[in-house]
Formats: sequence, C-alpha cells, structure tokens
Amino acid sequence: MNFCSDNVTGAHPAVLDAIARHNAGSVTAYGDDILTQAVEERLRALFEAPDAAVFLVATGTAANALSLSVLTPPYGAVYCYEEAHVQTDECGAPEFFTGGAKLITLPGDDGRIAPQRLEAEVARPTHGVHHVKPAAVTLTQATCVGTVYTVDQVHALSTIAHDHGLRTHMDGARFANALATLGCTPAEATWKAGVDVLSFGATKNGALAAEAVILFDPALAEAFAFRRKRAGHLFSKMRFLAAQMEGYLSADTWKTNAAHANAMATKLATGLKGIAGFSLLHPVEANEVFVEMSEPAMLGLHAAGFDFYRWTVPDRCVARLVTAFDTRAEDVDRFVETAVALAATA
Amino acid sequence: MNFCSDNVTGAHPAVLDAIARHNAGSVTAYGDDILTQAVEERLRALFEAPDAAVFLVATGTAANALSLSVLTPPYGAVYCYEEAHVQTDECGAPEFFTGGAKLITLPGDDGRIAPQRLEAEVARPTHGVHHVKPAAVTLTQATCVGTVYTVDQVHALSTIAHDHGLRTHMDGARFANALATLGCTPAEATWKAGVDVLSFGATKNGALAAEAVILFDPALAEAFAFRRKRAGHLFSKMRFLAAQMEGYLSADTWKTNAAHANAMATKLATGLKGIAGFSLLHPVEANEVFVEMSEPAMLGLHAAGFDFYRWTVPDRCVARLVTAFDTRAEDVDRFVETAVALAATA
Amino acid sequence: MNFCSDNVTGAHPAVLDAIARHNAGSVTAYGDDILTQAVEERLRALFEAPDAAVFLVATGTAANALSLSVLTPPYGAVYCYEEAHVQTDECGAPEFFTGGAKLITLPGDDGRIAPQRLEAEVARPTHGVHHVKPAAVTLTQATCVGTVYTVDQVHALSTIAHDHGLRTHMDGARFANALATLGCTPAEATWKAGVDVLSFGATKNGALAAEAVILFDPALAEAFAFRRKRAGHLFSKMRFLAAQMEGYLSADTWKTNAAHANAMATKLATGLKGIAGFSLLHPVEANEVFVEMSEPAMLGLHAAGFDFYRWTVPDRCVARLVTAFDTRAEDVDRFVETAVALAATA
Amino acid sequence: MNFCSDNVTGAHPAVLDAIARHNAGSVTAYGDDILTQAVEERLRALFEAPDAAVFLVATGTAANALSLSVLTPPYGAVYCYEEAHVQTDECGAPEFFTGGAKLITLPGDDGRIAPQRLEAEVARPTHGVHHVKPAAVTLTQATCVGTVYTVDQVHALSTIAHDHGLRTHMDGARFANALATLGCTPAEATWKAGVDVLSFGATKNGALAAEAVILFDPALAEAFAFRRKRAGHLFSKMRFLAAQMEGYLSADTWKTNAAHANAMATKLATGLKGIAGFSLLHPVEANEVFVEMSEPAMLGLHAAGFDFYRWTVPDRCVARLVTAFDTRAEDVDRFVETAVALAATA
Repeated sequence: MNFCSDNVTGAHPAVLDAIARHNAGSVTAYGDDILTQAVEERLRALFEAPDAAVFLVATGTAANALSLSVLTPPYGAVYCYEEAHVQTDECGAPEFFTGGAKLITLPGDDGRIAPQRLEAEVARPTHGVHHVKPAAVTLTQATCVGTVYTVDQVHALSTIAHDHGLRTHMDGARFANALATLGCTPAEATWKAGVDVLSFGATKNGALAAEAVILFDPALAEAFAFRRKRAGHLFSKMRFLAAQMEGYLSADTWKTNAAHANAMATKLATGLKGIAGFSLLHPVEANEVFVEMSEPAMLGLHAAGFDFYRWTVPDRCVARLVTAFDTRAEDVDRFVETAVALAATA
Repeated sequence: MNFCSDNVTGAHPAVLDAIARHNAGSVTAYGDDILTQAVEERLRALFEAPDAAVFLVATGTAANALSLSVLTPPYGAVYCYEEAHVQTDECGAPEFFTGGAKLITLPGDDGRIAPQRLEAEVARPTHGVHHVKPAAVTLTQATCVGTVYTVDQVHALSTIAHDHGLRTHMDGARFANALATLGCTPAEATWKAGVDVLSFGATKNGALAAEAVILFDPALAEAFAFRRKRAGHLFSKMRFLAAQMEGYLSADTWKTNAAHANAMATKLATGLKGIAGFSLLHPVEANEVFVEMSEPAMLGLHAAGFDFYRWTVPDRCVARLVTAFDTRAEDVDRFVETAVALAATA
Repeated sequence: MNFCSDNVTGAHPAVLDAIARHNAGSVTAYGDDILTQAVEERLRALFEAPDAAVFLVATGTAANALSLSVLTPPYGAVYCYEEAHVQTDECGAPEFFTGGAKLITLPGDDGRIAPQRLEAEVARPTHGVHHVKPAAVTLTQATCVGTVYTVDQVHALSTIAHDHGLRTHMDGARFANALATLGCTPAEATWKAGVDVLSFGATKNGALAAEAVILFDPALAEAFAFRRKRAGHLFSKMRFLAAQMEGYLSADTWKTNAAHANAMATKLATGLKGIAGFSLLHPVEANEVFVEMSEPAMLGLHAAGFDFYRWTVPDRCVARLVTAFDTRAEDVDRFVETAVALAATA
Repeated sequence: MNFCSDNVTGAHPAVLDAIARHNAGSVTAYGDDILTQAVEERLRALFEAPDAAVFLVATGTAANALSLSVLTPPYGAVYCYEEAHVQTDECGAPEFFTGGAKLITLPGDDGRIAPQRLEAEVARPTHGVHHVKPAAVTLTQATCVGTVYTVDQVHALSTIAHDHGLRTHMDGARFANALATLGCTPAEATWKAGVDVLSFGATKNGALAAEAVILFDPALAEAFAFRRKRAGHLFSKMRFLAAQMEGYLSADTWKTNAAHANAMATKLATGLKGIAGFSLLHPVEANEVFVEMSEPAMLGLHAAGFDFYRWTVPDRCVARLVTAFDTRAEDVDRFVETAVALAATA
C-alpha cells in the first residue's frame, strides 16, 4: 500500500507487451526506424499538430531541461512557480542544460503561478544587460500540489508571456491526469492555449521510462536534436522508447490509467475530508492528495503499513498521498478506514 | 542481414525476462530499491571491488561523459585516441558534462593511444594557467577499430597517467567483447591495470538501454550522484535499469553474447581475408571488421541486401562490419559467399 | 551633481600617478612581475593573512563570480540576500562561472540576510541528489541598501554556514565604506569573523578598474588561477592592475576616500530627514541614501540638475543617492537646499 | 632588452595622456557615456562599417572567447589553426564562453590554415547529431608564427566558411602589425574579405588593457552585450577603456607603433639570417621572429642579458623574438652583434 509517488509503480502490461512485440530483428538505430517515426506521427496526430517536432527521451528531468534549453539563451530568465519541480527537485538540471539561465520563482495559489505576478515581472522596465533577459515561463500541469490549470488559466499566462516576447513550456509529467480532469482535447490543452513546448510524460502513468517532448514550433527542432544527443539522451535502440509510447497510447491505455489514478485520489480525498482532524490543503483535481492530520494519526498510518511522504510544511503535519494507474480501491478504503479509526481514538 | 552496428539489435530474451519478472509491485524509486542495490553489489563482486561505487545509466554517452566529469575540472585536459567515440560521436557531450574541459587527441596504431605520445604530452613542461591542466586519459576497450588493448598496454598508459597526476577512464561500451578476447578477470582488465573509472556497457551486447559506471575510487561517488541527477540520468523507476543488468549478468549471458559476437567477426574476417581484392585494415580482436574492397564489390554487397556502413577513409573504399550477439553464422557465410562471387566477376 | 552611483566618478589622482610611475620599462607579463607580487604581499599584510592567496581582476562581477566558482560545485546552492547584486545585477554571472549553481535568495531587514532564514535553509533535511547541494553563502558589505553588517552579524552567519559545511564569501565592492563605519581592522571584518573569500573592491572608491580577491584558504588558489585565466580575467600587462591597487592603498587613500564618501552620505541624510515629506528607508551606514519623497519633489530635483536613480519600489517614490570620494560638500548642500525649497512649495 | 613578448611593454604615452584627459568629472557608467560612443563611432568609420556593433573589453582572451560565443551554438565546431592562441593559450576560454563548443584544429604552412583542409572538414558528409555542428572558423592575423594572411587568403577561407554556413572570426591581437604589412584598408582586410567578427587588439601595441570587438553583422550585438556583462567584462568606468582606444587611434599612434615593431623585427631577421648556424623558421611579416640556433648560442644570448622564450619545437633549439612599439634599434643591433660573436666562437 504505497502512496509515496506514482513512480513507485511498475509498467503497465500494454507497455511491456509493446516492448516484447518490437524486439525482434534488426532496425536502424538512433530513431531512424519505422516504429519511432510512426510514434512521432501518432503524437502529431493526437495533438492535431502536423508540423510539430517530436522527441522521445527517458526521464522527465531530461524532457524539461532540454525543453527549456531551446527556449532561453544562457543569459535568460525562466519563470516558474516557487515550488515547481524544475526549481526544487531537478538538482539544477535547468541551469545545467541551459548553460546557466536563471530560474525566477513566482508565488500563486494552489500551485499555480499568479498571472499578475508574472505580468509584474516581465512588464517592469528592464535594466538592460545587468539583469538576465526574460525568455520563458514554465507551467506544471497537473501542478505539484495536485491541482490543474484550466485552459483559460494556461491561455492567460501564455498570453502574458507571448506579449512580452517569452515562450511557454508545459511540464506535463502528469499531463494525462490533467487532461482527464479538463475533458478537452490535447490540442486545446496545449498549443491552442499558447503552449510552445510540452513535456508529455508517460513514465508516471504506465511506462518504464519514456517521455515525449513536443515542439509545436518546428524551428526549435534542430537545436533540440543536437542538445538531446550531447546530453546523452539519444538512445541507440530508440525502438524501445518508441515501443513504450506505442503501448502507452494504444487502446487509450494512457487515458484509462490517468482516469483511474484520478478517481482513486478523489475517492481518497472524499473519504478523508470528512474525518475530524483531517483537512485537505488543496482541491484534488488530479492524482495527488495533500492532507493535514495530527502527528499521532500520521504515526498510526505509517505503523499500519501505509507508505507515503510527510510533506515539508513548517509547523504543520502534512501527508502527500499519490495514486497511480495500479492503485487498488480496496487499499484506498483501508487507508480511509484506518484514518477513521485513528481519529476516533485521538 | 544487418552489419551496421551492434545497436541495431533488439534485446536478449534474458534481459526482457528480467524486466517482466521485476515489474510487479511498488518499490522505492530512484534506486533505493532492493533490486538495484543487489545489482550494484553483484557488479562490485564481479569486479572484486567491494568499495567501488556503481551507478546505472541508460546510454553510453551518459556513462562516458559523466565519468569524465568527475575526473577533470572544467579547466582540465582529457587525452583520448584521435578517433575515439568521445571525440567524434558524442556531439560534444564530454565538453558539456565537464563544463568545458578540452579533449586532446593522440594518434596511435590500430586504434590504441601510443604510450610515448601520451608521455610526451603530459611530461612536457606546462605553461601554467595558459594551457588546460592535464587531468585524465580515456581508453576505449575494445577500441573503435575492433582491436583490444592488452592488459599490459592498459597498465602502461595508466601508469603514465598516474605518474603525472592524471586519472584513467575506460570506455567499455564493448568491454565484454574485449574481455572475451583477453581471457582475464574483469578486475585484471580494469583496476588492477590502473583503471579508475569504467563505463561498463550492456546495451550493445544484449540490453535495451543500460550501462553501469564503476568508480573504483569511491571518493568520486558523491559528485557522480549529483551530476547524474542534474543531467536527467537518474531514473525514477530504476528497477528497470537494474533488471536489465541482472538479466544481462545472469547465467553468463553477457559472456556468451560477447563470445558469440567475437566468433562471428572472426569467422567473417577469416572468410574475407582470403578473397582477392579484400584486405583487413586492423587485426580482428573483438566484434568489428574493417575491410577494404573495390567500389564494385561494395556496391554489389549492398545490392545483395547486406546493410553496413562505408567508413570514412580518404581515397579508400572501406566497409565496417559489426557483429552482435544475434548474428547468425549463415548470414556470415552468405556475406562471404557473396564477396567471393563479386571478386570472381571483377 | 551626479548622485547616480559611485562608478560615475573618474579615478583618484593617486591611482593615476601610480600607473604613470610604473609605466616605464619591460616587465614580465601575467603577474609575474615585482610590482604585482609586492601588491599581493601588501594585501596579505593588510589583512594579517600571510598565507592568503591574492588575485587581481578588473571588475566586481568577475571578482564575485570567480570567488563563488571556487566555493561551490556546479550542482551546489549559493545563498544570498534577495536583492543582492549577484542575483539582480550581474546577468547570471554566478551561474555562468560556477557552471550552473543555483542562487537561493533569502529575505532580511535592511539588506542583511536574516540568520534564522539561513539556518532554516541549510538545517532542513536534504532530499539527497534531487536538490542542489548547499555550498556557500555570500554577504554584501556594505549592503545594497547602504547598511553595514556588524562584525557579530558576519560572524553569526559564517558560523551557521561553517556548521553545515558551507563556505562564506563577502562581496566587498564597498568594503572600504563598511570598514570606515565598523572601525575595526580588515582582518576582524573578514577572516576573523569567518569570511573565507573576500572581493575587495577598489573601482568604486578611486581606482579605474581594479578589485582584489583574497582567498583566506590558499587551497582554493589553484582553481582560482585557472578559472581567472579561462574567463579572460588574467591581464597580460598586470602591472597596471597592480599599480592601481598600489596607488589606492598608499597613504591611506582608500580609507580617506571611503570616509569622505560616508561623511557626504551622512550629511545628505541628515539634511534630508528633517524635511517634511522626505523619509529615509534604511539607516545610512555607508555611502548610499535611500529616501522616499513626493513625485513632484523628485521631478523638481531632477529638473534642478541633480542626477540620481529612482529606485524600483512598488507604489512608492524612492530615490537612491550615492556619494563617492569626490562628492563635494557644496553639492550636498545644494541638494538639501533644493529639497527644502521643493518641500516648501508642496 | 626584453624580446619575450609585446605584452612586456608599458603603455604608449598617447594612451596614458588620453586616460588623464578623460578622468575629470562624472559620466554615465557602463558605456553610456559620450566618449565611449564616440570611440565606437570612430571604429565604425575606420572600418567603413556604419552598421557594425562595437564592444570594448580589456583582454584578448575575452575578445576572442566572447566573439566565438556569438558565432557557435554550444554543440558547434570551431575550426582553428593547430597552434592557434585560442587552442593552446587561453586555458579553454572558448569552451567556457561557448558553453562547450569544440575547437577542431587544422594544420597548414607558416601558421595559416590550409584552405583544402578546411574545405575537407566542412564539406564532408555530416553524420547528423553525432558530431558537433560546423559553426565557425577563426583566423589569427598576424599569425602565431609572425606571418600574415594575404587578403586573398582570408577571402578564400571565408568563402569556404560561408559556402557551408559557417561564420568567420579574426583574432586580431596583432591586427595592426598585419595591416602595416598588407598595406590595405582595415575594411579590405576584414569584412570585405569575408570576416564577420574581428578582435581588434590594442594591448600589445600600446594600450594598457584594451581591445575592441567589431561585429560586422549587427544582429549579433544583443547576444554579445549580454554575454559581455555576464562574463564580468562590462566595465563600470567604461570611459577608461574608451580613452585608451581614443589615444591609440589618434594621430595614427596605432599605425606608427605597428610599423615600428614590424621594422624592428625585419631588422632583427635580416641581421640574424646571414649568421652561420642561425636560420629563420618562417617568413617575418609582422613583429615576431622565430629563429633556430645552436644550444650554446641560445645560452650565450641569455647570458648576455637578452630575455626571450625558447619555443617548444621537439628536438630543435628555437627562439621566439618579439618586437614592440618601444623596441630600440640599438638593442636589435646589440642582439645581432652578440649572435655574430657567438657564432664566431662556435
């Protein structure tokens, strides 16, 4: 009963099957194979973006850092939410890949950048070469606190960015979870709302290690291709990244997986929010639940065999609970029942 | 009948089986799982290096560039063979990962750095801060032309390096192929001969995408761990890299695979060298054959359905033929027969 | 009547004289000359630090960024005040020179890092390689708002840093101004209070373009020497940096200059603070005065021929007034008189 | 009697005078002053390039590395002569400033890149993203062995570069010396012959520390401006770089200085080449003389008080003799006389 993260899971059977199915025979290396090209085409079709450039990589950090590296010069500024994964959990990967660009953090409610804060940053008079040059904004979708930007919110932030000459990146490590909530098309959630580059995550939602970067502006493709290679992220046996993505996209596996994970999170939140002493920190709009509880309750849940992280919130006792494509409803029920029992004995 | 490279192959069944076997259940992410730790321990045992630090990554470029990044300061010099993969085929990855260190190329016979050339470079009086600081030497084993450094040759180069304060890296993308030829232990081929850091390749010899970096000096481990993460090469679902390595090492799969590939290359070389108009450029000591032939012969072989690369050698017509764990003896026979027939009609 | 900055000034005659005095004849280039060595020795003596390594450079940005580059790995974190020059006015130089380290900004009162905020940052449990590694803290002395850290305050921050394995850098672009206020020795203001590396500024206080970096830990010297060269900051005709520093230090020029600049700032602040509608934002402890006034008053002062910057403070009208070694008392008097007159007509 | 280099000299009086002349009063910092703008305009006029962007920096390494950084992506290749200063004497500055681009060295006669070698490199079929992308070629004028590219030779190399999408940089640390020999206009020697960016040196020929970078393509200016600042090479008191350049260019000081240095080198070469046992390695076309001699002769010259470097040429005894604007004819005479005497006693 592991609620630590959606990356403690294995891979979905459809993904493993695709790997096995494409293992036989010799194919051209480094992505010049039919399968990779078919997967790239499939993603273009999925996003209604026939001119987009698609690149497969194996980790979300690589997807994000490479994306930012084609959106900012080394003397540029990238704006992000103050607790964004790129800022707090990638060990400086954006700085490394961009050659030293600066992340500038912005606050906001429920994990979303406040538009007026972005506007204030990029609209203020520059002081020439003394400050880094505003270059890009990156949004996390679903956010790091389990909420989802509405399409209008994405559009509003992208518009501010574009109006001031910046580009927009979306960190979609949990894009499928966000899309399940939004109910719109992939295109509506991204380029139609102003997103220039998307990190389209698959790892957390059923792949072994596969992400796609979708450059809606194909002019960025050459730089991305070179940068992927020199970062060691161009796989020789690319068919295996492509196969994962094929299995992931086929038969709506990705959508089904995300919908299930979201449903489990909602179920968990619904069960917990009525318990005395338990309260949610944020609306639950994807597959993460942040819940405040008493110290004894947290101890009790851990003692009962539930794995999850205590989140760092000064002076408060907060648990982060993450559901995934393989989370079982009975485990959610047991979690809630245990919480109820612990609350009763408090 | 693809002799383009050993990365046009799929994965060995033992590797796929291991992935499937370890797919079930939740495990801690980022390498803090039992399987990863067991695989690291297994590699330490294999190399008789109980204190070594082991890191799994997915590509050879990442393995090499990360290795070099912990061996040189950004103002350092790394010496390599003039046609080494790190110099010619990694798009500047060493420069990127090291923060700008300079690769200095050295000539030699049959793909091996000439010791006297290394000595001459590192022994000459420095001119202080004006030149980059000699920091490391990197050897490719097996070499890029299909030969193998003897243990004594590795030792001689490492000794020169160590005597002048440099460290030794071995690019072992085809380490298994070299070891099959050397007939010594992994320890004898590496740290006992002075190697400080090894890129232990598995991808070309049967994995999907898995390499291990073995730091025989554990003092390098902290820097490597941070650098792997910020380069996007720390996998969240690390179990899948570990599983590949487990399948690769189990039941001597890696040794059997390499021995087979080498045998196929030898068979190919033996068949070709007796044909009029065909001549080998280098001794065949691993799984690569470089053979000069006439232009019509090359055309004919391509026309007959054999895939391979024409190697860039000015004014000469040279084919590079690479065998792998899945190369079939009958395909080698057909290649030789075709060559014989083409020679006869010349 | 220019109060824009202390870098709008020319050089002090003592500095120009020293340049002219040392112009004749041939001397060894790149700092291996007698004058440079004498100046380095003089700085060691001044700071009572016989083992310190001293490096001359021409700009404050170079001094700071090179200093930080020897204190942090590229995957490190450097803590600074939220409006520190390294963060806001050096166009990402720290990120560039360090190879991508991350500046983490901390708030505080009157331009000084709040010790409890630093403590909270470095004392919290790390999460391994996912976050950048805490490596250094940098203090600006005098601060960017014209205040001065007391020796005890420097010591307190350095102690927090050292207790957690970090090193301490001091950006002393206005070190002379701070020292004039502190009234202690250079050693007491720096290494005796825990400073590991000092950027000792001279440009703003009378040189053309000269700064010294003093590494109180000589183990950092080799890396600094190589990094200075590869950053293009090793001057071939080093005698001219050394001559500036000689002229600056001789006959207490540097102290006299700083004391004068500070006195002019105090005179200005004293004159302004009594005027209705004018109020100081911070204590005036060095050579900068931040004063809030009405919009008409600022317009009037500009119209009267006084040059100074309007500081960016949301919704407030704030002037930054900087005095220098050549600020004339009569110009300060005229500024105050003009302000009085404008206040009277408001 | 110092023939070590042209950077062992002081500054020309005209340069010191200009500094003194422009010292008085307050002026805007960071180059927004009238003098700097006038000097930039003067250089544009001198080069008949009204749209060129001009940037002043203090060192040749900065000028070169910044220039290359706006001509190549970090995954690019820069072609240079195999002994070029950027490759051998700048401690990896090009790699640092470009973010890791690779210098690829080319041979040639008398210090000049052989055009057919450049053609062979850039014309060969690329192998996609595996190799760094050809981006720029850099020529040293005068060369590192004291020869000068003819205008036709510059044009030939630039044409090869441009035909393959590369840009051309000229390292003109000794541009004045080259121009004195060429006898053409600055424009003919540079942009009319295909040079895109020029490092226009002044330090070696009479300044304290001043170089100008001239971007004949103004589209490169924004990147250069930001990169100069974040490299710490934007001087706050820019007037002092501008004043040096003004003094240098006024009254044809720069031309007179270079012509004198060249004449002294020719005089030296003429005197030495007739002596038994002395032979020139290269034609003397600027202000450097490379002369082979016997070991006893070199010892004798050093013993007689002449300072110069023994050049690193395996198995040969070679002296590099550099003349400068302040080299005295009588010192050249004495050098030759001493050589004659030493030859006579051999």
